[in-house]
Amino acid sequence: MLRNILVRSTGSNFKFAGRYMKSSALLGYYRRVNYYSTKIQTRLTSENYPDVHRDPRFKKLTSDDLNYFKSILSEQEILRASESEDLSFYNEDWMRKYKGQSKLVLRPKSVEKVSLILNYCNDEKIAVVPQGGNTGLVGGSVPIFDELILSLANLNKIRDFDPVSGILKCDAGVILENANNYVMEQNYMFPLDLGAKGSCHVGGVVATNAGGLRLLRYGSLHGSVLGLEVVMPNGQIVNSMHSMRKDNTGYDLKQLFIGSEGTIGIITGVSILTVPKPKAFNVSYLSVESFEDVQKVFVRARQELSEILSAFEFMDAKSQVLAKSQLKDAAFPLEDEHPFYILIETSGSNKDHDDSKLETFLENVMEEGIVTDGVVAQDETELQNLWKWREMIPEASQANGGVYKYDVSLPLKDLYSLVEATNARLSEAELVGDSPKPVVGAIGYGHVGDGNLHLNVAVREYNKNIEKTLEPFVYEFVSSKHGSVSAEHGLGFQKKNYIGYSKSPEEVKMMKDLKVHYDPNGILNPYKYI
Amino acid sequence: MLRNILVRSTGSNFKFAGRYMKSSALLGYYRRVNYYSTKIQTRLTSENYPDVHRDPRFKKLTSDDLNYFKSILSEQEILRASESEDLSFYNEDWMRKYKGQSKLVLRPKSVEKVSLILNYCNDEKIAVVPQGGNTGLVGGSVPIFDELILSLANLNKIRDFDPVSGILKCDAGVILENANNYVMEQNYMFPLDLGAKGSCHVGGVVATNAGGLRLLRYGSLHGSVLGLEVVMPNGQIVNSMHSMRKDNTGYDLKQLFIGSEGTIGIITGVSILTVPKPKAFNVSYLSVESFEDVQKVFVRARQELSEILSAFEFMDAKSQVLAKSQLKDAAFPLEDEHPFYILIETSGSNKDHDDSKLETFLENVMEEGIVTDGVVAQDETELQNLWKWREMIPEASQANGGVYKYDVSLPLKDLYSLVEATNARLSEAELVGDSPKPVVGAIGYGHVGDGNLHLNVAVREYNKNIEKTLEPFVYEFVSSKHGSVSAEHGLGFQKKNYIGYSKSPEEVKMMKDLKVHYDPNGILNPYKYI
Repeated sequence: MLRNILVRSTGSNFKFAGRYMKSSALLGYYRRVNYYSTKIQTRLTSENYPDVHRDPRFKKLTSDDLNYFKSILSEQEILRASESEDLSFYNEDWMRKYKGQSKLVLRPKSVEKVSLILNYCNDEKIAVVPQGGNTGLVGGSVPIFDELILSLANLNKIRDFDPVSGILKCDAGVILENANNYVMEQNYMFPLDLGAKGSCHVGGVVATNAGGLRLLRYGSLHGSVLGLEVVMPNGQIVNSMHSMRKDNTGYDLKQLFIGSEGTIGIITGVSILTVPKPKAFNVSYLSVESFEDVQKVFVRARQELSEILSAFEFMDAKSQVLAKSQLKDAAFPLEDEHPFYILIETSGSNKDHDDSKLETFLENVMEEGIVTDGVVAQDETELQNLWKWREMIPEASQANGGVYKYDVSLPLKDLYSLVEATNARLSEAELVGDSPKPVVGAIGYGHVGDGNLHLNVAVREYNKNIEKTLEPFVYEFVSSKHGSVSAEHGLGFQKKNYIGYSKSPEEVKMMKDLKVHYDPNGILNPYKYI
Repeated sequence: MLRNILVRSTGSNFKFAGRYMKSSALLGYYRRVNYYSTKIQTRLTSENYPDVHRDPRFKKLTSDDLNYFKSILSEQEILRASESEDLSFYNEDWMRKYKGQSKLVLRPKSVEKVSLILNYCNDEKIAVVPQGGNTGLVGGSVPIFDELILSLANLNKIRDFDPVSGILKCDAGVILENANNYVMEQNYMFPLDLGAKGSCHVGGVVATNAGGLRLLRYGSLHGSVLGLEVVMPNGQIVNSMHSMRKDNTGYDLKQLFIGSEGTIGIITGVSILTVPKPKAFNVSYLSVESFEDVQKVFVRARQELSEILSAFEFMDAKSQVLAKSQLKDAAFPLEDEHPFYILIETSGSNKDHDDSKLETFLENVMEEGIVTDGVVAQDETELQNLWKWREMIPEASQANGGVYKYDVSLPLKDLYSLVEATNARLSEAELVGDSPKPVVGAIGYGHVGDGNLHLNVAVREYNKNIEKTLEPFVYEFVSSKHGSVSAEHGLGFQKKNYIGYSKSPEEVKMMKDLKVHYDPNGILNPYKYI
């Protein structure tokens, strides 16, 4: 029955740490190539959005300001725009959709310096954009006008790790992959994984409440972050770097900063509970003939794989065609093309038990005809290769020039209908087709287990016509199904005006009140979020 | 080697729902008996704590106020103190340590009525104590003086359950056990379990951020609560009853109310992610000779039982002697007495795999001599019986008259030293011994996996001398180890003045600011929390 299900190797555990380094190094390579080779010349955000105006309350930087920063920071901690110094890396987002005009980047090497900078900026009404790895997808980490950029890149030390409890304390600017490699050596694993792990910062991940590939198994950061160190807009350092799993002494203040996107304070330190490193991994790549069958396989996987299920991703046919265009030398895992594909990862403490559970599960769903074809990775290399067909999609969506990315939560049954509706709408508007049509197509993939769809509209150029066709259409669709217009990417600049599609006026009012409560001068990450 | 490890039955899954109903019915029985048979006559809190004064800002109830409440509520929704109506049930806490003097209990049947009540009380400056099942352990759910009691008991409907996602929406006043039984019928399980489940409310559990027995496996409520409906002190209803696992659109406001103990808003509805009901359970009861060995067993259990480990509890020798005095007819699980005992629960999707993992683990730790004796439950009845030796401790601690309960987080290595230090201190003060000495003894037990110790000081009477011997001694000890003075019980009235042992002045200041921000008149649950 399992025509294409390869026989798995047993008894040999995958070298998990190795996998991570290799695959992310690979992603890093593709990313860099993309970044500099894209055909799109990023326009200034202020030109693209003429209705957004610079807030005149904010001071324009003077030589006095610069002198102050020079008095507290070393030369290496200050980057000024000049003929020899191009600040594009800090002013432009990764998708090249947004471009600010900051002339000054500060990269302080201590929390105390972050405090001094904010205290000064608050007094002087200088707007500040906190920036981590700048891998965000909603334009939240780059300036809109001339805001000062405060990069956390030089706060990059592991502070402490306790191998008994698995609690890690580190600076905000530690790169996620470095944090993960560090705890992996001590048989733990960071409870979150995402494509940008080679660049994004731990602090940025927390500030944006990133979700990623393993939320299904390990839950959200609201559960795993145990403490934070935060510098408030007035420069006050709040040290809440606690390391207890349970602490019911007062309001859980740290929760407010998780997902606040740098609007009410700057996270400078993180205390987080890591998870025991699984001893065994399995990855299976399957085909199904309808999205209804994707759902069926998911319900079955949750029942039968249960505690060892660590990822359940789906990809539509077009997404794999795009991935193929990037993974040129790689053989497609299956013999034929199908409407939908599923990637299932299991991880557990006993390879034989996991193999047995997965085998039984696959036999069942194939015998019943819900799954039509599939392979199971035989070794670490195959495991990595199967993951690439999922991990390459974001890069591939972008390869023709640009991408409009939507990241939404929807009830499972409605998840794919948004992709179909979007393709229909783009076709009606006669925007899709071969060049010179501006749109390549809309594809869907994502974290089925979390009710989280990534809708990517691959384009050859960014233009207002496409944007107007997509927005607020996508948001209205999501709202009509009581979903979220941002499942994990956040609000940033892109979705600031669309929060009303997911939150009630009372909720938005409460949020605005909190912003004023903590940042009365509004200096932190203005023009964004709410 | 496994002298006392019984052969487990295989192939038969435990009737899990059955277990819950039986064991909690049993607990409820013991609880009621205790409640009315205790030798202690509860004194008024105002007499016990003469330094705490009634805030003159709060209005004393008038006949006009009563007339207003009569105009919006039915007769069944109003309870007034009178010759025929004793409000002790609402004025006294479960431990009989705290006793308020409220003359009025309102039990509204709709959220709109909660809103009208709060709006009126806010305008009139009438102090309000929100009350769920009144099973709290820090005096947080009963009045101190004449505060109006707003009981959520009549808001007790299941609103919605989605069997595909496992998301439950219910009123705050649904009893935890009822909620659990409801989802159990559809193959899900509430992600939290605690001894008071037969009385406590889902809303109360969330308002106090209760931890309980399975936090080790399913994490805290900050991760599993997806949405809340809250009535603010001014009567505004904030509907955030979302049902998405991922939603990054703005500050996660609901987090503030989780663990806020009714001080900034009253939770009236809860949306929560339940977990798939495990198909197989195992429970093992083990003996070890030192607390050092308790730690060793824990580290090994986490490595070897990993994803199926769902509870890891330890109990000291004295706690089991006390439990024995309550469990009169039950045979002690082991042949001899030992200094420490461990209860391990596994739960998973495949009984054979779980049995195999547990068997290998037990063989290893017994062969190495870390565990000296042990039994494994053979069937559902035995499983229930083993759990009783852990679950009966709170009741048994109370059986001689009263109990001073401390619930702290400590680094694992320091966890038991607090019990030893407390016993030494009580002996020095010559308070411990047979009657008429007031103290029976200090015992320790709790959730090793969460670094959470329950220190219970069983007493024959509550008196100031005992209290002064214990406090702030216990809090100072915890603070010196950077622990939390309240791991899961909260602050309430008991620990209001001790928050400084766990939180910095900046954090406390931020909390006080938040309280004022949301409850400027301070009407909600005064004299408590911060």
